Amino acid sequence: MKMYNGYERLPRNYSLLTDEYEFTMGCGYLLSGKAKDEATFDIFFRRVPNNGGYAVMAGLDKVIPFIENLRFEERELDYFRRNNYPKEFIDYLKNFRFTGSISAIPDGTPVFPNEPILTVKAPIIEAQLIESALLSIINGAMEHATGARAIIEAVGQDVKVYDMPNKKGTMEFGLRRADGCEAAIDSSIYAIMAGCVGTSNVLAANMLNIKAMGTMAHSWVEAFENEYEAFLSYAQIYPNNCLLLVDTYDTLKSGVPNAIKVFQYMKDHGFPLNNIGIRIDSGDLAYLSKVARKMLDEAGFKNAKICLSNGLDPKTISSLIEQGACFDTLGVGDNISKPNGRMGCVYKEVALKHNGIWLPKIKLSNDTVKIVNPDRKRLYRAFDKETGYAIADIMMREDEKITTDDLIIVSPIDYLKKTKINNFELVELQQPIFESGELVYDDPEILVKRDYCEKAMARIYPEVKRVMNPHLYHVSATEDYVRFKNDLIESHRKLVLK
Amino acid sequence: MKMYNGYERLPRNYSLLTDEYEFTMGCGYLLSGKAKDEATFDIFFRRVPNNGGYAVMAGLDKVIPFIENLRFEERELDYFRRNNYPKEFIDYLKNFRFTGSISAIPDGTPVFPNEPILTVKAPIIEAQLIESALLSIINGAMEHATGARAIIEAVGQDVKVYDMPNKKGTMEFGLRRADGCEAAIDSSIYAIMAGCVGTSNVLAANMLNIKAMGTMAHSWVEAFENEYEAFLSYAQIYPNNCLLLVDTYDTLKSGVPNAIKVFQYMKDHGFPLNNIGIRIDSGDLAYLSKVARKMLDEAGFKNAKICLSNGLDPKTISSLIEQGACFDTLGVGDNISKPNGRMGCVYKEVALKHNGIWLPKIKLSNDTVKIVNPDRKRLYRAFDKETGYAIADIMMREDEKITTDDLIIVSPIDYLKKTKINNFELVELQQPIFESGELVYDDPEILVKRDYCEKAMARIYPEVKRVMNPHLYHVSATEDYVRFKNDLIESHRKLVLK
Repeated sequence: MKMYNGYERLPRNYSLLTDEYEFTMGCGYLLSGKAKDEATFDIFFRRVPNNGGYAVMAGLDKVIPFIENLRFEERELDYFRRNNYPKEFIDYLKNFRFTGSISAIPDGTPVFPNEPILTVKAPIIEAQLIESALLSIINGAMEHATGARAIIEAVGQDVKVYDMPNKKGTMEFGLRRADGCEAAIDSSIYAIMAGCVGTSNVLAANMLNIKAMGTMAHSWVEAFENEYEAFLSYAQIYPNNCLLLVDTYDTLKSGVPNAIKVFQYMKDHGFPLNNIGIRIDSGDLAYLSKVARKMLDEAGFKNAKICLSNGLDPKTISSLIEQGACFDTLGVGDNISKPNGRMGCVYKEVALKHNGIWLPKIKLSNDTVKIVNPDRKRLYRAFDKETGYAIADIMMREDEKITTDDLIIVSPIDYLKKTKINNFELVELQQPIFESGELVYDDPEILVKRDYCEKAMARIYPEVKRVMNPHLYHVSATEDYVRFKNDLIESHRKLVLK
Repeated sequence: MKMYNGYERLPRNYSLLTDEYEFTMGCGYLLSGKAKDEATFDIFFRRVPNNGGYAVMAGLDKVIPFIENLRFEERELDYFRRNNYPKEFIDYLKNFRFTGSISAIPDGTPVFPNEPILTVKAPIIEAQLIESALLSIINGAMEHATGARAIIEAVGQDVKVYDMPNKKGTMEFGLRRADGCEAAIDSSIYAIMAGCVGTSNVLAANMLNIKAMGTMAHSWVEAFENEYEAFLSYAQIYPNNCLLLVDTYDTLKSGVPNAIKVFQYMKDHGFPLNNIGIRIDSGDLAYLSKVARKMLDEAGFKNAKICLSNGLDPKTISSLIEQGACFDTLGVGDNISKPNGRMGCVYKEVALKHNGIWLPKIKLSNDTVKIVNPDRKRLYRAFDKETGYAIADIMMREDEKITTDDLIIVSPIDYLKKTKINNFELVELQQPIFESGELVYDDPEILVKRDYCEKAMARIYPEVKRVMNPHLYHVSATEDYVRFKNDLIESHRKLVLK
């Protein structure tokens, strides 16, 4: 079991974290002799939350220990005894180990609607028992990572912003609005993974073996006779981490002038001045930051940094930048720990082995978009050989091979949408994580995933990443695959309605 | 430590689950001799999420073990050593125990904006170190409880709905959309506390020593030759829990007719018929449920229940009821595990003891609504002696006494809003939880809290609980309190702007 600086990633046994129907079905499969029938399930999502152009894959750091820890011990078995599940099923659970295979797109990869981001191949009983926890882990993780990356991309779009020697960074401050203690850890970990330069969360920071970020709250300022005293005391204790919160009384009339007085005191008394600055946490951040910048510059503290916080989201950040707000770092809470829009990953059966033969499965719906992409598949990302940008993700059946360099790709939900691509390089997106129950994947450290995410995001067109009305990235399939899917739909419709 | 059927409520030590600035300030207070100054902090929220009329208090079941578990052991202390915190502070943390007092409104109570739902009195260093975790616990808990109760109230408004012998109930199905594994447990536990009749979450159910609810997913239906076979197999294994999912292929043409065939088979073969029914999980639930009800009735299965699910929220439920949809139970996921709108509880200093004297504290803001209600307070709910309904919540300073039966109450944010109330009974809302570090509160079982919540909600006017544009419930203060607050604001404004 991989440890995080002495901490377990998952703090308890979650084998029972399952919807009851998985157990009623599991027991039913066992009693009706179907438990060992192998099934393939895909996890995918139908739309990006908050009208974004992409999502960021996340959660394998928890999926792996969840699968490794799957054990039903006495406390778990008691539930089934108490509720009169048959002895046969309880005996099955007693010896339960996950024996299936899982492949997935690595954490930190930008991903798109309707493509399989994780695939489970296992006896159907096992595949069902892990469904609910897998979805909760991945939905939660991807919401944080996607929310954080949307913030980072909004900051990154900046061209006009005040030009500072250091990189502008986003800090994650969302602990207090997270959905309880573990979600707070997740929020911080996935924010870092997605590219945040730091977090305020000390427990998460300790797990990642980094230092958390933070200086003072309003209560510090209120604990002293006056604002100047509060700032001065702080500067004397923490001259190397001296970001003063200037909006307790009045930002421009009191806070910034007192900060400048303290910086002057530090200068006069030979304190280091390489980590001084102010944080503005209320009011019109665009206006206040510009005036504060001017005041700091005119007082000779051009290197004093400005941090802005207070309910920032991608749209308000874009607007701040457009208005020429002056900042070096942003502190973002809610919109990483609880971003707008939910991640709606689902877990759908795409194939079932019957008498040794894999049969593709499809669930029809009156809504074409809701029809699942059937069968065991391969998923590739095509990169333009010239620009390096990703041009499309392409699904095909597991045994299909691409022999041409001049490929026609088709939308799997609209057969009329065809594009020809050429001069591309194909990279397979899913990697094996478990094979026959054995972990075969060396899950990278979170900080390694951050570097990977940065590089993977750089290969996505800026138009797909923009805040407002992003360009739709193509998740396509080969012509053969779409023909196969349409034939399958036809034959099922006939069967049902005959 | 209270256990939940063998499970701990909090699965690990969360003493480090704190924003870094709490530690920088804590260390600063220690070094500047202020650590032992007693402070009072209130937790309150400024608005009800999702434009609702009330929120439901929740989270004490986790706040209590969090406080009881506060210990900095080697793994925690390493963080401070590694990051060069002074030895004096590390020694302080080594011996840290929470020595303060906490009072709070009990879980399950309907609560309103700008009133103190939890109050901490403690040496300022201790009060700061627990801020972030307390907020994350309570914000998460209240979101689930408030979201669940909004659903339950929407169902309860029903007058036209199909008349069944059993109470219509809401089941919580939100595990797969929760923010990871612990948030999934919380979501289910607080849904039950707020009045849901059951949950699909087996781990949460095991913790509460109840049975989880659930029967089959679409994958069960797809695992058989055809829908009839799938239903029949299920009915033979689970005749006493026989809710058939009828929308895999075509609800009215295939699902309901196959369900009826199976119920007929059960009848012909002497199976029990007291727990049969169908679940519809897609399509136009109003239309489909009415037609399905008619089909079931005409086939002689008037007692077959109908469960509806699929993205239900208070508004869609109201609309279903208005249209005369026929249902006995609802399954609700997203809107309990991740309701729209965030709970924005904050933690604000209201008083600080200096040289043995409590000084009221206030943080000014250009926005009147954002000004904190200062000083140590008492909070009462006034109930009309005749109707039993709650008419207002009333704040006053700790030493103020109400001597009249004819009380003028004032809005603490708008001095012009005054009301006279009479013939009321006052009930104090906060109860002592910790006193001088000792737990003095016997936190009730979740199922006991559910009964309490039901009764407390029944004393809130229906107009405050309605889905659309609820009536604003009065959170008021005595005239003396508002006068005191306004004077304090005046004197602070003068001080800052002099």
